[in-house]
Amino acid sequence: CIGQFFHMKMHWPWLWITLCLLCPAMVCGGKVLVFPMDGSHWVNMNVIIEALHSRGHQVSVVRSSSSWYIKETSPFYTSITLNIDSGFEEDFITEFVGQLLAIQREGKSFWTRYKLEKEQAEQSLEMNEKMSRMLEMLFENKELMQSIQDAKYDLVLTDPVSPIGAIVAHYFGLPLVFNVRWTSHGEGHFAIAPSPLSYVPLTGTELSDKMSFFERMFNVFMFSFWEYQLAYYILPSYAGMIEKYLGPDIDYKSLFQAADLWLMRVDFVFEFPRPTMPNVIYMGGFQCKPSKPLPQHLEDFVQSSGEHGVIIMSLGTLIAELPRDLADDIAAAFAKLPQKVIWRYKGDRPASLGNNTLLVDWMPQTDLLGHPKIKLFVAHGGTNGVQEAIYHGVPILGLPLIFDQRDNLFRIEVRGAGKIVDFFTMNEHTFLQGIQEVLNDPTYTTNMQILSQLHRDQPMKPLDTALFWIEFVMRHKGAAHLRTESYKLPWYSYHSVDVILFLVGVVLIILGTLATLIRCLCSVCLRKKANVIF
Amino acid sequence: CIGQFFHMKMHWPWLWITLCLLCPAMVCGGKVLVFPMDGSHWVNMNVIIEALHSRGHQVSVVRSSSSWYIKETSPFYTSITLNIDSGFEEDFITEFVGQLLAIQREGKSFWTRYKLEKEQAEQSLEMNEKMSRMLEMLFENKELMQSIQDAKYDLVLTDPVSPIGAIVAHYFGLPLVFNVRWTSHGEGHFAIAPSPLSYVPLTGTELSDKMSFFERMFNVFMFSFWEYQLAYYILPSYAGMIEKYLGPDIDYKSLFQAADLWLMRVDFVFEFPRPTMPNVIYMGGFQCKPSKPLPQHLEDFVQSSGEHGVIIMSLGTLIAELPRDLADDIAAAFAKLPQKVIWRYKGDRPASLGNNTLLVDWMPQTDLLGHPKIKLFVAHGGTNGVQEAIYHGVPILGLPLIFDQRDNLFRIEVRGAGKIVDFFTMNEHTFLQGIQEVLNDPTYTTNMQILSQLHRDQPMKPLDTALFWIEFVMRHKGAAHLRTESYKLPWYSYHSVDVILFLVGVVLIILGTLATLIRCLCSVCLRKKANVIF
Repeated sequence: CIGQFFHMKMHWPWLWITLCLLCPAMVCGGKVLVFPMDGSHWVNMNVIIEALHSRGHQVSVVRSSSSWYIKETSPFYTSITLNIDSGFEEDFITEFVGQLLAIQREGKSFWTRYKLEKEQAEQSLEMNEKMSRMLEMLFENKELMQSIQDAKYDLVLTDPVSPIGAIVAHYFGLPLVFNVRWTSHGEGHFAIAPSPLSYVPLTGTELSDKMSFFERMFNVFMFSFWEYQLAYYILPSYAGMIEKYLGPDIDYKSLFQAADLWLMRVDFVFEFPRPTMPNVIYMGGFQCKPSKPLPQHLEDFVQSSGEHGVIIMSLGTLIAELPRDLADDIAAAFAKLPQKVIWRYKGDRPASLGNNTLLVDWMPQTDLLGHPKIKLFVAHGGTNGVQEAIYHGVPILGLPLIFDQRDNLFRIEVRGAGKIVDFFTMNEHTFLQGIQEVLNDPTYTTNMQILSQLHRDQPMKPLDTALFWIEFVMRHKGAAHLRTESYKLPWYSYHSVDVILFLVGVVLIILGTLATLIRCLCSVCLRKKANVIF
Repeated sequence: CIGQFFHMKMHWPWLWITLCLLCPAMVCGGKVLVFPMDGSHWVNMNVIIEALHSRGHQVSVVRSSSSWYIKETSPFYTSITLNIDSGFEEDFITEFVGQLLAIQREGKSFWTRYKLEKEQAEQSLEMNEKMSRMLEMLFENKELMQSIQDAKYDLVLTDPVSPIGAIVAHYFGLPLVFNVRWTSHGEGHFAIAPSPLSYVPLTGTELSDKMSFFERMFNVFMFSFWEYQLAYYILPSYAGMIEKYLGPDIDYKSLFQAADLWLMRVDFVFEFPRPTMPNVIYMGGFQCKPSKPLPQHLEDFVQSSGEHGVIIMSLGTLIAELPRDLADDIAAAFAKLPQKVIWRYKGDRPASLGNNTLLVDWMPQTDLLGHPKIKLFVAHGGTNGVQEAIYHGVPILGLPLIFDQRDNLFRIEVRGAGKIVDFFTMNEHTFLQGIQEVLNDPTYTTNMQILSQLHRDQPMKPLDTALFWIEFVMRHKGAAHLRTESYKLPWYSYHSVDVILFLVGVVLIILGTLATLIRCLCSVCLRKKANVIF
C-alpha cells in the first residue's frame, strides 16, 4: 500500500501534494509500536503519537499498569498493558527534589548529601531492575509476542532511556526509531557520533564548547563517570535478558547504535555545534505551536499589567511545594515589582504574596509565552519549557534543580538570553536582583529573539521533519544507508590502534635489523683489524 | 530589506508563502560574490548561480581573462575579469589523460609513468602558483578592492579547490559558503568533521566503509600522503599571500574550517555514512532535472531500438579521442549487441562501427538518461554523470580514468548498481562481457532504481535546500550557531593529549611519592632492626 502511494508520489507529485493537503489522514497508514518512557518524556512522545494518528497511522503503545501519565485508553492509540510496576515513581523524584532543596539550603553535611545521592542511585538501579522484569514479562507472554508478530508493525518508536523498545525491535527485526535526548548512558549523540571531549561537553558538567584546560579535564572525568555508571549500574540489569532473548553475540550498546533514526529533541540554536551523523534528525521544539487566545480571566489579568507587562513562573511538575521561607522570599520579591506575575504553585499561599501575583495550579504555559505582554519566564529549565521560551522569544530567569536543567539553562545563559540564579542559596534580594537584571537589560530579550528567529527559520517545521523521516523508514523498511556500522569494529580497530601498533612494529623491526647489521659489520671489521694487528 | 521580509515571514506566513509561490523573483534580493573553479566544477556552480538569479539575487563572478568555461557576459551574473592566466588548462588535462591511457595500455615502464605523474604534480603546483598570482593581482588592484567593499556583498560563494574565495571573504569579513566536494587537501568533510580512518575511506583509495586490516592501513597511508601533498605542494603557494594580506595569525586550513556553510555535492545514497557537522548541507544531485523530450531525430533513433532498448556512452569532456585500437574494440563490441547505442565521441569514426551505433559530438545526457528506453549508461564516472544516473535509475558500466572517477564508480559497484571495467586492460571481449552482465542481470537495474527512490525521497529538492541555506546565511549574516570553533584548539588539546598526559603525570607522581614513602619506611624499619641486632 505504501509502495503504491510512493509510486504516485514519484510519478504524479501534484496529485500527491493535493491529496496530502486536502486530507492528511488519507495517507496510507503504517503501524507503529511505541515503547514510551513515563513521566515528562511521555508528553513529548504523545505529541508524535497524535501527529502519527492524524496522518492515518495506527499506533500501539506498550505501557505498565502502574503508569500514571500513559493512559490505557486514548483516541490516538491502542494500548498494550503489562500488569507490572514500571518502576517509574514520580512521588520518589518529587520527594528527592524536596529533600535535596532542604539539604542544600540548610547546608547539611556532605554525609547527608552523599546518603541522599546514594539513595537516588539505588532507586535508579531498582528502576532498571523493574524495567528488566517488564521485559521478561513481555517475552514470556507468548500470546502477546505472537500478536505483536502477527500485527506486522512497520517500525518500533521508542525513548532510549529504557532499552526495552530496542530489544523488541531487534527480536522482531523491525526498523528502530528513537525519540531521544538521552540514552541510558548519557547524551544521545555520544552513542553514535564521534564526540571529541575537548569541545563536546558531557551532560551534567555545565560546560560549553569552549573550555579551559581544567574544564576539559573535568569533562574527561565526567565521561569516565558515565562509562562507570553504565558498566556498574545499568548493564547488569539487562545483560541476562539480552543474552536469553537475543543470544550471546548482542551487546547492550550495539542495540542502540543499530537504530535507523535518532529524532533528537534539540537543535543547534539550543545545543552547541558538534559532530553528528546522517541518521540524526533534529526536531528540537517540535512540540511548540503558535499561541492560542488565553481564557478571559487570564487575558484580563495580563492586560491589567499595562506597559509593565507580565512575568510567569513555573518549576514544572516535580516541585509541588517549596520550603516556606523560600516561597515567602519569592512572593516578597514579586510583590516589589511593577509587573504582574502568574505563578504556578501548588503549595500554601505565602504570607508575603503581593496583589500583583496570581497563584495558579496550572497555566496554559505556551499560550502565555506567546502573549506579547509576557516579559520574563522564571523556569526550572526542563528541555520543553526552554524550547518553548526560545520559540516565543521570551528571556528566562533560571532556577535549575536536577537532571539536565542546569545544562539547559546554561546554554541560554551563555547566549545572553537568560540568567541562572542559584536556587539553593537564593533569597529575596538575589532573586529580585536577577529578575530586575533580565527585565531592565534589553540585550536579554534581544538575544532570545535572535535565537527565536534562528530556530523558526528552518526549511520545514521540526514536527513535520520528524514525521517525514518516520514515514521514510516505513516506506524503505529502515534507513540503512544513513547508518554507519562502524560500531561493529572492536575499539582498537575503530581507533586504528592496531594499524598504528603494526606500523610502529614494522619501523622498529626495520631499525632493529639495520642496527644488528651495522653491529655485525662493525664487529667483522674490528675482528679483521684485530687479526691484522695480532 | 531582508529584515522586513523576514518579519513578514514570521508574522504573516500565509502572505509570505503566497508571495513566494506567485513570484519567486519578488523575494528581496541579496548580493553574492562568486569565486568559481574553472572546468567541470563551473557547470555545478552555474546551476546555483542561475537559481540565485531566478530568486532575485545579484551575482558577481570573479573570472580570469583566460577562462574558457566561465563566460564574460551572461544573463545570470555580472563578471569581474582579472587579466591573468588562471592556470586552468584543459588541454593539459586532456593530454595527460591521453598519455596515461597510452602508457597504461602499452604497459610502459614504471619510470615513464613516474615521469608523467611527476609532470602532473608540477603542473598542479604551477596552477597553484598562478592562482596565487591571481590573488595578488586582485589585492593589489585597490580600485577593484574598493568596489568590492562598496558593493556590500551578503556572502562569498566559492569552490574551495582554490582558497581565493575564502581569503577574500576573510579579508572583507563576509560570510562564506562553499559549493564543494573537495578542498585542495582532499574530500570536503575531512577539513571539519571527525573522520575515523577505520571506516571513512580517503579519496583515491577505492575503499568502502568496511575495510580489512590492510585496507585500513592503506587508508592511513593515503591520509599521510594527502597531508604531505598539502604541506609541500599547496601551502607554500599561498602562505606568503595569506601572511601579507590577512596577517600572521591566520593559517591556510583555518580559512576553510571557518566557513559558514558547506554545500556538499554528495548525499548518502552515493556516499558511505560517516560523521558530519551541522553546517554541512547535502545537495547531491542538485543539478538533476526531470528529462525533457528528445530532439526528433534522437527520439526516432531511440524508438527504433524496440524492446532491446538503448545504451548511451560518454566519457565526459576530458577524453577527446581514444587510441585507435581501443575505439575499434568498443565499436566492435557495440556492433554485436541487439541494442541501439548512442556514443558521444569526437575522434575518428572507428572502422568496426556497427549500424546500431550513433556517434555524436554532444548529447542531451540527462534527457536521455530519463528516457524509459535507456537500459545502460557507459560512463567515465564524473560525479555529475553518476548522480544523474542515480536520479534516473539507470545502471552504469564504468570506465574510470583519473581524479575521483574510480571512487565514484566504486560506490555504485558496491551497491550492486553498476560494474567497473578496467579501461587500461580492456578489450572487445571484456567490454562486451561487462555490458552483457549489467544488461542481463536484472539486479543491477533494480538496485539502481532503489538508489533512485532513496535519492528522490527527500523532504526538499536538493537545489531548494541549497538555496534555502544560502538565503539563511544572507538573512542572518552567517551561520555561526552551526559552526564549531574547535579548529582553533591546538591539535594536542583537540585530541585531549594534554589532559591525558597531565592525568598520567599526576598518577605517576602519586605512585612515585607512595613508592618513595614505602622505601623510606622500609629503610627506617631495617635501620632500626639493624640497630637492634648490633
